[in-house]
Amino acid sequence: MPITLYDLAGAEDARRFSPYCWRVKMALWHKGLPFEALPWRFTEKDRIAFSGQDKVPVIEDGGRVVSDSWAIALHLEEAYPERPPLFEGPPAAARFVADWTEQVVHPGIQRLVLTDIWAHLADKDKAYFRESREKRFGMTLEAYTAGRDERVGPFRAALAPLRALLGRQPFLAGRAPAFADHVVFAAFQWARCISPFPLLAADDAVAAWRRRLLETYDGAPGRALGYPC
Amino acid sequence: MPITLYDLAGAEDARRFSPYCWRVKMALWHKGLPFEALPWRFTEKDRIAFSGQDKVPVIEDGGRVVSDSWAIALHLEEAYPERPPLFEGPPAAARFVADWTEQVVHPGIQRLVLTDIWAHLADKDKAYFRESREKRFGMTLEAYTAGRDERVGPFRAALAPLRALLGRQPFLAGRAPAFADHVVFAAFQWARCISPFPLLAADDAVAAWRRRLLETYDGAPGRALGYPC
Repeated sequence: MPITLYDLAGAEDARRFSPYCWRVKMALWHKGLPFEALPWRFTEKDRIAFSGQDKVPVIEDGGRVVSDSWAIALHLEEAYPERPPLFEGPPAAARFVADWTEQVVHPGIQRLVLTDIWAHLADKDKAYFRESREKRFGMTLEAYTAGRDERVGPFRAALAPLRALLGRQPFLAGRAPAFADHVVFAAFQWARCISPFPLLAADDAVAAWRRRLLETYDGAPGRALGYPC
Repeated sequence: MPITLYDLAGAEDARRFSPYCWRVKMALWHKGLPFEALPWRFTEKDRIAFSGQDKVPVIEDGGRVVSDSWAIALHLEEAYPERPPLFEGPPAAARFVADWTEQVVHPGIQRLVLTDIWAHLADKDKAYFRESREKRFGMTLEAYTAGRDERVGPFRAALAPLRALLGRQPFLAGRAPAFADHVVFAAFQWARCISPFPLLAADDAVAAWRRRLLETYDGAPGRALGYPC
């Protein structure tokens, strides 16, 4: 039985934009595990209540339910040790990449594309998303993403550690991509699936790395419904 | 024969402040390898000319000469595989922590303590240091570090990824420190050895981690000549 993934979707079933769900899809492709990614919307909390919490990603794998992208990666690594590894050492040693992504890359991207996320949501999600985010940030979505042409420079500058690393080696994990790459790439997929805004300069080493990732796993990440980049 | 390390020193032989040399000392203690750390000054390029370049750290290990802190860590790992590992997976997977340290932590600390470095140098190094740094930054040392009471807030904020990680696990490498910890800790030793300026708030998880590192290897890092922190 294939693994089932509850995967955040926009207005169209095919528009899948959650960065945390993208981590899981990359990990499943990496391990070559068949899966079915069911579209799920923010307001369908009841559909994942069986997981004991209210956020995606959630997977069901042969009766086992796992939520949280990091926990899912650990589960896949443990349950399928004969498949290509997501981590080549202790997962804890890769955790810093995820914390950097969540503390630096996610907030930076969110400030640039939050209004674009809203524009691509299913109608039933739009009010929930606007209200919860406007409460969290203390301003309208439009005010939050205003001035992004000026903000994109500092965002690109904040990617300096990744850019320096990519001057030394082709992937965060080394010679080939693994979960550390999935985690950062997933943030860029989040943006690509809902926004035409150019996050990266075309000649940036980070853009070249993103293009390499788009072509992995028989090009599956590059075929996802989204904008050219 | 013990390993010889050429180790950047200030006015006193015992004041050893190079962050890159600190990485190597931490790695040598971690592996339990005896070593002699010879004081070296910026203007003594001729003393390390045998290494084919002009920067410390340089080690001599049984006739083998290695420079560059990352290359030295790889050498120690390869030459002493029976000793405690510096990396628990492929070193490339730990490289991002070093790139983040060099792109974020080092520039942040430098902007706060550059004048303090100068104040602790041997007289013969002072003119070289002032001229080379003032040329690099296009301003006097004093102008470069001016306003540090305002800059320290953004510096602390930039440590958010490390702080988030330390909410999950005690060390960058996981349950016990390894080279990833040495690399970041070395940046804080750089500051501690030459500056009384408080880089971290006392209740910061990063400060608690630094205190844990100061006590490693029988407390050797904490005994280095420097300021309380």
